[in-house]
Amino acid sequence: MADDVYAKQQFGQKIGFGRLPALLVVDFVNGFTDPDILGGGNILDAVEATKPLLAFFRAAKLPVVFTRIVYADDGADAGVWCQKVPRLRDLTEKAHASQVVDTLAPVEGELVIRKTQASAFFGTHLAAHFVGKGVDTVVLAGCTTSGCIRASAIDAMSMNYRVTVAKDCVGDRALGPHEANLFDMGQKYADLLTGGEVVAALKARAA
Amino acid sequence: MADDVYAKQQFGQKIGFGRLPALLVVDFVNGFTDPDILGGGNILDAVEATKPLLAFFRAAKLPVVFTRIVYADDGADAGVWCQKVPRLRDLTEKAHASQVVDTLAPVEGELVIRKTQASAFFGTHLAAHFVGKGVDTVVLAGCTTSGCIRASAIDAMSMNYRVTVAKDCVGDRALGPHEANLFDMGQKYADLLTGGEVVAALKARAA
Amino acid sequence: MADDVYAKQQFGQKIGFGRLPALLVVDFVNGFTDPDILGGGNILDAVEATKPLLAFFRAAKLPVVFTRIVYADDGADAGVWCQKVPRLRDLTEKAHASQVVDTLAPVEGELVIRKTQASAFFGTHLAAHFVGKGVDTVVLAGCTTSGCIRASAIDAMSMNYRVTVAKDCVGDRALGPHEANLFDMGQKYADLLTGGEVVAALKARAA
Amino acid sequence: MADDVYAKQQFGQKIGFGRLPALLVVDFVNGFTDPDILGGGNILDAVEATKPLLAFFRAAKLPVVFTRIVYADDGADAGVWCQKVPRLRDLTEKAHASQVVDTLAPVEGELVIRKTQASAFFGTHLAAHFVGKGVDTVVLAGCTTSGCIRASAIDAMSMNYRVTVAKDCVGDRALGPHEANLFDMGQKYADLLTGGEVVAALKARAA
Repeated sequence: MADDVYAKQQFGQKIGFGRLPALLVVDFVNGFTDPDILGGGNILDAVEATKPLLAFFRAAKLPVVFTRIVYADDGADAGVWCQKVPRLRDLTEKAHASQVVDTLAPVEGELVIRKTQASAFFGTHLAAHFVGKGVDTVVLAGCTTSGCIRASAIDAMSMNYRVTVAKDCVGDRALGPHEANLFDMGQKYADLLTGGEVVAALKARAA
Repeated sequence: MADDVYAKQQFGQKIGFGRLPALLVVDFVNGFTDPDILGGGNILDAVEATKPLLAFFRAAKLPVVFTRIVYADDGADAGVWCQKVPRLRDLTEKAHASQVVDTLAPVEGELVIRKTQASAFFGTHLAAHFVGKGVDTVVLAGCTTSGCIRASAIDAMSMNYRVTVAKDCVGDRALGPHEANLFDMGQKYADLLTGGEVVAALKARAA
Repeated sequence: MADDVYAKQQFGQKIGFGRLPALLVVDFVNGFTDPDILGGGNILDAVEATKPLLAFFRAAKLPVVFTRIVYADDGADAGVWCQKVPRLRDLTEKAHASQVVDTLAPVEGELVIRKTQASAFFGTHLAAHFVGKGVDTVVLAGCTTSGCIRASAIDAMSMNYRVTVAKDCVGDRALGPHEANLFDMGQKYADLLTGGEVVAALKARAA
Repeated sequence: MADDVYAKQQFGQKIGFGRLPALLVVDFVNGFTDPDILGGGNILDAVEATKPLLAFFRAAKLPVVFTRIVYADDGADAGVWCQKVPRLRDLTEKAHASQVVDTLAPVEGELVIRKTQASAFFGTHLAAHFVGKGVDTVVLAGCTTSGCIRASAIDAMSMNYRVTVAKDCVGDRALGPHEANLFDMGQKYADLLTGGEVVAALKARAA
């Protein structure tokens, strides 16, 4: 069993929250909620579960950042990833598929990061934005668990942020990879809590 | 089945090799081959399978780079990852556990990159080194499949390198995560070939 | 004299061109050509001198990339740089001041990079774009010499690109810093040629 | 005059200190203090002026980081910068020229960053280290003003740190570039204070 060797080697210790958590909502855009494009699986459930988590961060005036995949209209920056996964190149600035879903629409002051790769940090100014805000903890919601969430979790940990994956607020087009990546992240890069547990923990701390 | 939705959404297209492939040997160090430290599973088999692949790259005078995880002796740069996985902090400059295994020891001219995080690219000058060499393709060997290989594959793809994972030359302390991560990488970030297939393809191209 | 110690210590060796040069046109936008906003000095002359250089790269089908500074409309990503230089925050997606000047307008297939900092590489996917194109040499035009050109030259060199600054195709709001930064770049980070010399050298090489 | 246009365009606003300043001591190594290698000018004065600044940060238990330029012994990572400035390639792990000067020697817990390029942040884990410590302000000492200090100041500002250059604690092999780069940094990337003023300001704040 994977669990045995991981336990023996002391993987999966708890990280906890720091002083200032930010909510990072990754790629909850129309194209990733539509099973006929790049969606499916439990992604719509994850969108639904993210609503109260987002509401809490807004009410508590904690930083919130969204990401969208955006390629140039003329494909000028469509690279190797678009060769591996051709449908990505349809995610352009004004395409319906690349707009954040209406039910989670960003409000004034919430940064929306354009990215061309899986990680929210790669080739973007997200790390600098977090430094400017004094963020030391990243709570992840979004999709897909095995794609942009996993990649963003690795980079967030690598940048020395405390990382929590809100496990019911992340979704994937297929449940096998969803579960496998939650396991990996929980052992190596992040604490795993439900969105409700995140809210409860942050409320308890503020009290 | 995960495979069905991935096929329907056209994931997993072939990338192929570019003009100049480099071999990136990730974290094949003593501590990751010893099941009592951070090793186990099929990692020793992967070391063995890497020997002829490395020999080919050397004979063909193609770039070879190794990585090691190295933290400061006094723990000055041990961050959140070392909190999640405490044994990492024992990987210091002169520790036996952090030396490349003897059977694959780097030779003159092969860069050995020190890193503190999972990806060979994070916080290192590897991308710049590859630019200097004109590398456009990265072949990955090393460990662990679900850790530093996966993280390095994402970053290599994100930097627009063509990425091939030599699937029998990468290993993991546990086989479940090994297989799950090969699936993810094959669908999203890399071509999957055996080391022998990599050699054959590069030989055929040179002929 | 600065020149003496630099010569004695062997600074300022020639780099030359590699296999594939790209033209990087930095921040030639309306706001930096207008002395009442962020422009002045010899910037308009530099725009003019860039026309034949750009025409050559287009005719030779060599990669061309433009940059613009773009902050979020609501100032969500206006950070410390906007505190130091407050007018930067007016450079938003649709502001006239942040559009590339008409006489150098990008054409189909020429990537336009949005950035929030001085360097064209910082927090952007420019390095990955160049890897995808196989670029190994960067020719710089744009403004300002002492700001975004200098910062981009350092990063281009740091990424191991061969760097040439087209010295009459870069401009600054003030001539003292323009000259001082050409000196620094010529000694440490780049070859200095006129735009005409760049064209002649690349033509000679192609012949 | 450069000053007039900068004033008119509102450059050079004050940034001030944040919550947690770190001292970044850049490249005060033997090779940069020896005029026969890469030193000269006012660098020895800057080393001397840095002593009380460093003593203050240590006494106040504020983070201190040093940098050294270190290339592989066999030149495996000597790139284009070493072509432009050939003497850099002599700065190897054990070379006397690449050791921090004795009078400022790092003590336990002070991270020493190896770098291969001008900026302390490029290709290093310095940004992640600062995130882990909660640093939001960077005070710069070291050399050279026109080289690694300038490059590090740009990157520190780009990462959204509040940046102060301790102007008598930075030095250069030639005074013209030293002054020119202090001007540029003061207008665009950093506050300029003497080391004594930094200490006084931080003491006043703590009181």
